[in-house]
Amino acid sequence: MRKKLQVGNIASIQKIFTMELVEQFAEISTDKNPFHLNEEFGKASIFGQRIVHGMLVASLFSALLGQKLPGEGTIYLGQTLNFKKPVFINEEVTASVEIIHMRDDKPIVKLKTICTNSKGEIVIEGEAVVRI
Amino acid sequence: MRKKLQVGNIASIQKIFTMELVEQFAEISTDKNPFHLNEEFGKASIFGQRIVHGMLVASLFSALLGQKLPGEGTIYLGQTLNFKKPVFINEEVTASVEIIHMRDDKPIVKLKTICTNSKGEIVIEGEAVVRI
Repeated sequence: MRKKLQVGNIASIQKIFTMELVEQFAEISTDKNPFHLNEEFGKASIFGQRIVHGMLVASLFSALLGQKLPGEGTIYLGQTLNFKKPVFINEEVTASVEIIHMRDDKPIVKLKTICTNSKGEIVIEGEAVVRI
Repeated sequence: MRKKLQVGNIASIQKIFTMELVEQFAEISTDKNPFHLNEEFGKASIFGQRIVHGMLVASLFSALLGQKLPGEGTIYLGQTLNFKKPVFINEEVTASVEIIHMRDDKPIVKLKTICTNSKGEIVIEGEAVVRI
């Protein structure tokens, strides 16, 4: 049984997206943007190297919401995403979700969703709304 | 060379997410929520069957933005997502992006992003902000 949820509850996950994972995601999503796949394009870009798809990094929020907090049975209603900085191939990132509001009238919870890089810089921030 | 962009430009893509693609995405993203992977759980859920990860469906917007409109070189700054209805395994969806605003002072474009199912119902809606 799920423990009682409350504002301030936090869950997080670490992940390294390798080139292999990025290439697999490109195939599945059809997102073959050269920023992610082409070494020369990445080097010549403002980022200086290939970067991980923002939507792949953001999928860590979905993973956390459905498996850790609130956990199994959670239904995703909405997500906002601000892509603040690039995430590089093989860079460890930490995604975290924190409950910031629980509605009294409905089983709906709002969470702050943040992803940081190994320097502690925020790479993605936003909010999720879920039904529990 | 990219053609001149203007408000009203639209691009779209069709996609069917098979069970195999959903399982691959679950591995890559670590999102192994039973709504997506477990047949019995899906049948017993309010959806009546397994559903595709919302974030996987939303990745079609990223694919469109980076490859069709605005196209190559586009940098993703933000995305809002409202998950309105479930997308089922093997169901064809159509994702589309439409330019709704272009800033005069900076090369920043806002697009309406919508995904519909085979009945024409909106399954995801939101907005993207990109740098061109």
